Amino acid sequence: MRDAHIDALVNIVGERRCLWNPNQVRAYACDGYTAESAIPRAVVFPESTDEVAQICRYLYEHSIPYLPRGACILSGGATPTGGEVVLSLARMNRLLAVDFDHLRAIVQPGLVNLTLTRRVAHEDCYYAPDPSSQSVCTIGGNFAENAGGSHCLKYGVTTNHIVAAKVVLPDGSVIDVGAPFGDAPGYDLLGLLVGSEGTLGIATEITVRILKKPQALRTALAYFDRVADASDTVTDIIVEGIIPAAIEMMDQLAMQAVDKSNYHVGYPHDIEAVLLIEVDGLAAGVDEVMARVVELCRKHNVREVKVAQSDAERALWWSSRKMAFGAMGRLSPDYIVQDGVIPRTRLTEVLQKIEAISQRHGLRIANVFHAGDGNLHPLVLYDSRVPGEAERAVQAGSEVLRACVDAGGSITGEHGVGIEKIGEMAYMFSADELQVQRAVKACFDAKGIVNAGKLIPLPGRCVEVKHARDIIEDHWQILNSFPDQAEVQVRGARAHGAGAEHTTSVQG
Amino acid sequence: MRDAHIDALVNIVGERRCLWNPNQVRAYACDGYTAESAIPRAVVFPESTDEVAQICRYLYEHSIPYLPRGACILSGGATPTGGEVVLSLARMNRLLAVDFDHLRAIVQPGLVNLTLTRRVAHEDCYYAPDPSSQSVCTIGGNFAENAGGSHCLKYGVTTNHIVAAKVVLPDGSVIDVGAPFGDAPGYDLLGLLVGSEGTLGIATEITVRILKKPQALRTALAYFDRVADASDTVTDIIVEGIIPAAIEMMDQLAMQAVDKSNYHVGYPHDIEAVLLIEVDGLAAGVDEVMARVVELCRKHNVREVKVAQSDAERALWWSSRKMAFGAMGRLSPDYIVQDGVIPRTRLTEVLQKIEAISQRHGLRIANVFHAGDGNLHPLVLYDSRVPGEAERAVQAGSEVLRACVDAGGSITGEHGVGIEKIGEMAYMFSADELQVQRAVKACFDAKGIVNAGKLIPLPGRCVEVKHARDIIEDHWQILNSFPDQAEVQVRGARAHGAGAEHTTSVQG
Repeated sequence: MRDAHIDALVNIVGERRCLWNPNQVRAYACDGYTAESAIPRAVVFPESTDEVAQICRYLYEHSIPYLPRGACILSGGATPTGGEVVLSLARMNRLLAVDFDHLRAIVQPGLVNLTLTRRVAHEDCYYAPDPSSQSVCTIGGNFAENAGGSHCLKYGVTTNHIVAAKVVLPDGSVIDVGAPFGDAPGYDLLGLLVGSEGTLGIATEITVRILKKPQALRTALAYFDRVADASDTVTDIIVEGIIPAAIEMMDQLAMQAVDKSNYHVGYPHDIEAVLLIEVDGLAAGVDEVMARVVELCRKHNVREVKVAQSDAERALWWSSRKMAFGAMGRLSPDYIVQDGVIPRTRLTEVLQKIEAISQRHGLRIANVFHAGDGNLHPLVLYDSRVPGEAERAVQAGSEVLRACVDAGGSITGEHGVGIEKIGEMAYMFSADELQVQRAVKACFDAKGIVNAGKLIPLPGRCVEVKHARDIIEDHWQILNSFPDQAEVQVRGARAHGAGAEHTTSVQG
Repeated sequence: MRDAHIDALVNIVGERRCLWNPNQVRAYACDGYTAESAIPRAVVFPESTDEVAQICRYLYEHSIPYLPRGACILSGGATPTGGEVVLSLARMNRLLAVDFDHLRAIVQPGLVNLTLTRRVAHEDCYYAPDPSSQSVCTIGGNFAENAGGSHCLKYGVTTNHIVAAKVVLPDGSVIDVGAPFGDAPGYDLLGLLVGSEGTLGIATEITVRILKKPQALRTALAYFDRVADASDTVTDIIVEGIIPAAIEMMDQLAMQAVDKSNYHVGYPHDIEAVLLIEVDGLAAGVDEVMARVVELCRKHNVREVKVAQSDAERALWWSSRKMAFGAMGRLSPDYIVQDGVIPRTRLTEVLQKIEAISQRHGLRIANVFHAGDGNLHPLVLYDSRVPGEAERAVQAGSEVLRACVDAGGSITGEHGVGIEKIGEMAYMFSADELQVQRAVKACFDAKGIVNAGKLIPLPGRCVEVKHARDIIEDHWQILNSFPDQAEVQVRGARAHGAGAEHTTSVQG
């Protein structure tokens, strides 16, 4: 509904960059986490730091909930909970500067990850973090989620590659954090903001490291009859002191999905696991390292191991891995990508637990993961048209995460918490720990209106409390900024299949 | 003076682990930053997390200022400003656990950096961050300062090697931050705490990464007639995509100091710069890489370059570098180690500015630095017995830092801000930025009594305001916890040579 607030936003960005008609804003009702969605009040498309600051200042002053939207979001971090203004950063997609002498680039948040790599490739440079979604996800989305990728085993995750940023705080003030060269003194606000899922501020200019491409790469594909052998191979490689650029694993179900897609690697149908192992570095050493990797595969009963003989072969192997998520559509109309971390040596045991969870819920779970750093991506397949399946899928995903925590791991490697895992936060953290998190949030956003209900669970007693959706709904009623609109959105949310009625035990 | 508060502390740790007699506590009046000092009220030596928590709870409840003390502190971060209780972590020096399968160790904060490396050496492992002081500095001190070291060019600084910690917050509550495996979800509190210089909490159990030792090392020593050539060599190496384990540089004055010590490398007396370059990795590649490094040195007119032919030779070259700070005692009775960062390519220009600062103040400045990451350590030599020299040395150091900021760098690479650089914080950050830093501090320490006056300047107007010492003195008067003791300490501080009267422009 057009009102004075919409007029004010239009005043900042113009008519064409402010959507408010429900039919237009519906496309922004969810992100990569498909189990929940709600209609935003409006979607604005700023093009500069100054416009972002003006928008934030206006909304904060008027206590109107809002959230930023980048592309990298798989856990509901960019899903409205009902009636927020969404700041889409899609139009802030420029590469602002590159400094090849110091290997730095300054980008706007909407720049696509792979585009950055392409734009610096002529100087043999690249941007290291490479999520599977790198051809569509944005550096701003990566910033919000502290995204990882296949090569973060050796090169680190997003937080290791961002050195500075210009940030618009919730109230619209603008600060610089980090330092292009050297650590910034004072508290590491940049580190705090990276991975904060848009709850503390909006990065509008991001200074990243770029790297020189390694001189040489060697890539191996190894088929294992048993997951345990693949897993032991991974452990042995790391303990030997070899740090491969990447070690990826897929299980049989994931291989089936990939082989049904356009990527015909032709995996054997009777193996439990495939490893994709890449080593890189100076030309002088890579063949020796790869020879040792192959030896370790053989030590652990590999059925077959081959080293890519051409760039085309390597590219095929990688695309088959990177498209694994998308290929799930060949097996199932819907799926949830989970994202947990475990100590490497507990892989076999946790995969057994995941198998048990799968059987208990009658849902197939495919496993695609960054084996080198123990970062699992179980894909829970479900059909949202079958009553109850979406809820069971969410429940199964939650149980998988708890199994990761029980094994000494974490509920997220790189996809963030968002809405999806907010219930598991209390499984991982004590009440005191969550209280500190909330205090940090309040320190940046005293009104609690910026992407509220994401990442950090609001305080609750040690009873069954409501799921994020309901928490934010309560919050919404307190704020009461858009009463009529809120009513619409809450209904809209409830009408959607999954998650709205889902309750989780939150201790706080 | 013994009073009820001392009794309470004794009650927690026992008589033998609580010092309060002024003669005993005098040893804790300063840290590695020698230009300021003040007598603490008491020094306690807890031995467990529980004791630390009890002490903090008591002190916080009674609004008694306190600060933790580790060993790694060169900027005044562990220097009392007058009358605080000091929590020395020296007795919490145990290695609690090592997990060689996952390459993790859990240590108490008082464990000496090099001791950790020695304790895991039998499995060919080591702890990567290696400050020059590694034989005496502690992991807790490294944590507080986010310490670097010669090898952080390739391996990263402390924050890249700490994965989790148990932390006692200012009020005595205990939380766990980070995650041993995988990133912890929520805000990166661990990253916030690392480098917070003991102002936000005390880490009592620290989980660190340990690494497998590289298979092979090659170390070269290169003499350059001109700094500019040495500097260009460094840039070329990095831009080529080689990431050496370390690239260290020393200037002629630093070489003279080292050659007067027990380390007889015998540097030529007529060269401007020496580079110490180390490459490491798999045996297969290192010789080729080192050959290329030597080639690049030759391209830039190196006078002589030699590769170490034995472990003994390598050890001699390294000890001559690592003892450079200590060797300054051969040239000057006092010195201040500065610590600024600049973009690599601006090395020659900034060194010229440092030379001009040196001449202007009539003080010699030696330069020892981590050239690969542009981390300078100018050593300002002075004699505290000569009236005015200490003040001039502090002023010269401050000018050096501003030159670093002006070149696009930072006021600290690894030594922290402490008291020393608190004036420069306002040179580097805007008022809004400092305000966010203060808000974060208040979020952990609402009373503002934990290592107050360090790291983050208290708010002030844009005028000449008082130096940290005086700021905290005001603060002290407001708190008024130990009026008689305070009086003594302020006098004690004023009686000391340097810094007490020094004023700096703080904008806030």
